[in-house]
Amino acid sequence: ALVGCSQAGPMATAGEFEIEGKVYGMPKAEVFREDYRGDAVVGDTMTASPHLAKLDYAGNKTHQVRLDTLSQKVEVAPGVSYTAWTFGGSVPGPVLHVREGDRVVFTMKNRSDEAVLVSEPGKGAAPFYRQMSDNPYQKPEAAISPMPHSMDFHSGTVAADDKWRSISPGETVQFEWVANYPGVYMYHCGTSSVLMHTAMGQYGAVVVSPKEGYPTEADHEYVITQSEFYLQQVGESYIYDHQAAMANNPSHVTFNGHVSALMDQPLRAKKGDRVRLYVLNAGPNGTSSFHVIGAIFDRVWYEGNLENEWRGMQTVLLGASNGAVMEFIVPEDGLYKLVDHEFHDAERGAAGALIAAPA
Amino acid sequence: ALVGCSQAGPMATAGEFEIEGKVYGMPKAEVFREDYRGDAVVGDTMTASPHLAKLDYAGNKTHQVRLDTLSQKVEVAPGVSYTAWTFGGSVPGPVLHVREGDRVVFTMKNRSDEAVLVSEPGKGAAPFYRQMSDNPYQKPEAAISPMPHSMDFHSGTVAADDKWRSISPGETVQFEWVANYPGVYMYHCGTSSVLMHTAMGQYGAVVVSPKEGYPTEADHEYVITQSEFYLQQVGESYIYDHQAAMANNPSHVTFNGHVSALMDQPLRAKKGDRVRLYVLNAGPNGTSSFHVIGAIFDRVWYEGNLENEWRGMQTVLLGASNGAVMEFIVPEDGLYKLVDHEFHDAERGAAGALIAAPA
Amino acid sequence: ALVGCSQAGPMATAGEFEIEGKVYGMPKAEVFREDYRGDAVVGDTMTASPHLAKLDYAGNKTHQVRLDTLSQKVEVAPGVSYTAWTFGGSVPGPVLHVREGDRVVFTMKNRSDEAVLVSEPGKGAAPFYRQMSDNPYQKPEAAISPMPHSMDFHSGTVAADDKWRSISPGETVQFEWVANYPGVYMYHCGTSSVLMHTAMGQYGAVVVSPKEGYPTEADHEYVITQSEFYLQQVGESYIYDHQAAMANNPSHVTFNGHVSALMDQPLRAKKGDRVRLYVLNAGPNGTSSFHVIGAIFDRVWYEGNLENEWRGMQTVLLGASNGAVMEFIVPEDGLYKLVDHEFHDAERGAAGALIAAPA
Ligand SMILES: [Cu+2]
Ligand SMILES: [Cu+2]
Ligand SMILES: [Cu+2]
Ligand SMILES: [Cu+2]
Ligand SMILES: [Cu+2]
Ligand SMILES: [Cu+2]
Ligand code: NA
Ligand code: NA
Ligand code: NA
Ligand code: NA
Ligand code: NA
Ligand code: NA
Ligand SMILES: [Zn+2]
Ligand SMILES: [Zn+2]
Ligand SMILES: [Zn+2]
Ligand SMILES: [Zn+2]
Ligand SMILES: [Zn+2]
Ligand SMILES: [Zn+2]
Ligand SMILES: [Zn+2]
Ligand SMILES: [Zn+2]
Ligand SMILES: [Zn+2]
Repeated sequence: ALVGCSQAGPMATAGEFEIEGKVYGMPKAEVFREDYRGDAVVGDTMTASPHLAKLDYAGNKTHQVRLDTLSQKVEVAPGVSYTAWTFGGSVPGPVLHVREGDRVVFTMKNRSDEAVLVSEPGKGAAPFYRQMSDNPYQKPEAAISPMPHSMDFHSGTVAADDKWRSISPGETVQFEWVANYPGVYMYHCGTSSVLMHTAMGQYGAVVVSPKEGYPTEADHEYVITQSEFYLQQVGESYIYDHQAAMANNPSHVTFNGHVSALMDQPLRAKKGDRVRLYVLNAGPNGTSSFHVIGAIFDRVWYEGNLENEWRGMQTVLLGASNGAVMEFIVPEDGLYKLVDHEFHDAERGAAGALIAAPA
Repeated sequence: ALVGCSQAGPMATAGEFEIEGKVYGMPKAEVFREDYRGDAVVGDTMTASPHLAKLDYAGNKTHQVRLDTLSQKVEVAPGVSYTAWTFGGSVPGPVLHVREGDRVVFTMKNRSDEAVLVSEPGKGAAPFYRQMSDNPYQKPEAAISPMPHSMDFHSGTVAADDKWRSISPGETVQFEWVANYPGVYMYHCGTSSVLMHTAMGQYGAVVVSPKEGYPTEADHEYVITQSEFYLQQVGESYIYDHQAAMANNPSHVTFNGHVSALMDQPLRAKKGDRVRLYVLNAGPNGTSSFHVIGAIFDRVWYEGNLENEWRGMQTVLLGASNGAVMEFIVPEDGLYKLVDHEFHDAERGAAGALIAAPA
Repeated sequence: ALVGCSQAGPMATAGEFEIEGKVYGMPKAEVFREDYRGDAVVGDTMTASPHLAKLDYAGNKTHQVRLDTLSQKVEVAPGVSYTAWTFGGSVPGPVLHVREGDRVVFTMKNRSDEAVLVSEPGKGAAPFYRQMSDNPYQKPEAAISPMPHSMDFHSGTVAADDKWRSISPGETVQFEWVANYPGVYMYHCGTSSVLMHTAMGQYGAVVVSPKEGYPTEADHEYVITQSEFYLQQVGESYIYDHQAAMANNPSHVTFNGHVSALMDQPLRAKKGDRVRLYVLNAGPNGTSSFHVIGAIFDRVWYEGNLENEWRGMQTVLLGASNGAVMEFIVPEDGLYKLVDHEFHDAERGAAGALIAAPA
């Protein structure tokens, strides 16, 4: 029941109301127990970074989305793995793509007490799984760390104490939200300590495309999430270091969860292409001064909103949990590195690459 | 003489000149000694955070404002008090509200050598005092720490070496400024070490409302000042830790001066309300990635200027001494937390709450 | 051959192409050896900070620019000197001024293995040299530290692996770029560790004035580059401290390369003047909350692009390698300090002065 998407747009139910075309007053979240052992990621517009799903429908739609929370061992740098708390089994979690005005019916089971194998998806599973299996860095191993968790979508406008509530291992929460504003949004676990739950890996990006789309034609679209890791070595293992997190002293800063993710699997384009990046700075602590070496951003939409357009930028400063859409023209064939120009963070891994070559 | 407000707008005196409707060339500051023992805060549009005074006049006006500097013991977190250097007896100091084009005739006596009881205001005292007495966190005790101090209003355009000059204990400084630009401004002591004087508590917010007002109708308006404290325990007491301040390693980060100020006394609204926040990041060192959990900012005016409008923002990044006006629609009844999404700062106290419930 | 400037605009050579009036597809960089012992800075629009060259031509032009890299001992604070890696012999390097649409034919020899005396320029040398000799803080002494280096102009849109390539001591690189976008840009060495090469002194500003100019008339124009130094004392000497750089713990933060550069040689204006600042935050790590004490920025063009205009700002937040044009009206005669309002950085030297007095 959760894999399909009805073609209808958002429909007001009892209690909902509109202000300036935006829908508020969602039904109460429901918490229940279900006997679910299926795919942890369900939704046809859920992808693994840096991919973004195409929206193959006109107008608006209601998306049935599942994103279970579960523990996995993931690699952050060569030789550096830790038992992450994840959404869907990867860090960052899957990218969700919807359109401004779409409705999301969201389901999350807290499976932190269960050894979930994300490498064995069922038939009809989200594109996320196929893309994940291409990723040499995320070869997650199932792990168990029973723990309350929650889901906070920055793209949703709802009462946080109701929808973003914490659920215990074995519980499932279900709620709805309407994508009232276009943008590049963060989602993350909001359970205390939020610093710890996000630093442990519970975050990802939602892209809400504007109703009318962007005014430009992009040849390639990529999603990049920057985030910090705070890991300390204990014997052969790495574990979260809360003191380092409190001191904003990361051990690793990554694009899409691994110091080499965008280096060994570079983004692709050819000269003259317009490349559109959906960039999220997930923090949890620091800013990002996002820059592409060799390029100038022709257009930047802060937070991904068309009304926040700046032009001709060498570098885009993002606060913790800011997003932006950034476009640049590829000047010629060659190698373009992407960096946080706060260079101590680039040295910790906040670097990637785009290779421009004939198609 | 200082409590009233003349109804006249700013009048050019000898030496003043206008450029693009803005008034420059204020008369020289005066420094003198006065036998003043009255209220440390004088002005009918001076309030305690998060309150903002209504401007009950049309057009422009000259405001007679007094804000004496004095030492008080204040609480920053449960069990954590220190002898603060303050404007008016609270940290942050009172909020001053004026309108673009208004003139402020400002008086400040350096009463750092005097035990001033801010809990015993005179008749006709500023609204600030009544609001302060509602505040369980600011139960200041008078203290004496003789020290030169000064006043720097970011809302004023004047020669800093003249108006923002340091005065000794017992001295009074008087000067004028015209609110040439609308916005949410910082004021603070500018006496060296400025890092120390601001970290010790000497700062607050000025709101200069645009001449034409904001284009929206807000149901509630609140003022929030974020700031860092750098305190170390010495025996039973807490004192300023300059090394920690130099290292940007705060012990506490607060909204309105106390880690619980906006938690135990939450902001109030009801569903469907448009809430307008006047947010100042006073620093003195860090940025703020200001976010409301469960909401998206419908409109943001950077620095509070109508020409700097962005829409649909999950998070607003503020530099040290940046302000902004941020509005959001309350989606439904419930609890909305306000945080610096740089989570190590939220963990140190940069969190507050808004409760939405039927009026 | 390198000192002149042809009056012709950019001309498409084989392989070049245009998109929306911007020129891409530059010829391949050339690396060669030359027997060059001349001036390390060649170009009639190359100045020492805070000066900006006048552009005395209409329309567009091709600029022949040389900026050799060489080591020099430079002073950062009284009694604190270190052997810097420089472009042209100063930290920051010379300011390059061109117009949107201009072409730059750039030559750089890696002379890090040569003791270059920048105090003995040849006839017809860049204005940079005369201005440098007025500067009491930059009395560089030649030094030798053979090392690969490279040049990355943020103002250029080219394949970074080709144009920004590293060259060995004794080698010369030559390439072209077209100033496709107006703005205030960073240039810097991009050789690994980039953190180290920039922290060692290899950076500067390029100002690309908009084709149509700015819409205001400025009475004074000044260039300010903020940057951090990470120095530790070893005996009588100071050397780069990589651990401090990784920890974003600078020993000094400066405007134009010296803690006193803009204090003892203040900027000048008179009351009523419109002062235009071209501000670059070179980092390499931190943000800048740029503020002028006593003034409000009437207009700010983020990154120097006319389309990114904000008004009425007390403080402008710049990421690492962001630039901006900021204008303010001088309210009256007196002293105006410029600071990074992140006060721990101001305390480390990020402060300067403008003195307003009758001309
Ligand atoms: Cu969690
Ligand atoms: Cu760069
Ligand atoms: Cu003071
Ligand atoms: Cu959040
Ligand atoms: Cu270098
Ligand atoms: Cu200030
Ligand atoms: Na960063
Ligand atoms: Na670049
Ligand atoms: Na912060
Ligand atoms: Na939110
Ligand atoms: Na700074
Ligand atoms: Na100021
Ligand atoms: Zn519904
Ligand atoms: Zn769907
Ligand atoms: Zn592709
Ligand atoms: Zn392509
Ligand atoms: Zn008044
Ligand atoms: Zn209400
Ligand atoms: Zn030239
Ligand atoms: Zn001049
Ligand atoms: Zn002048």
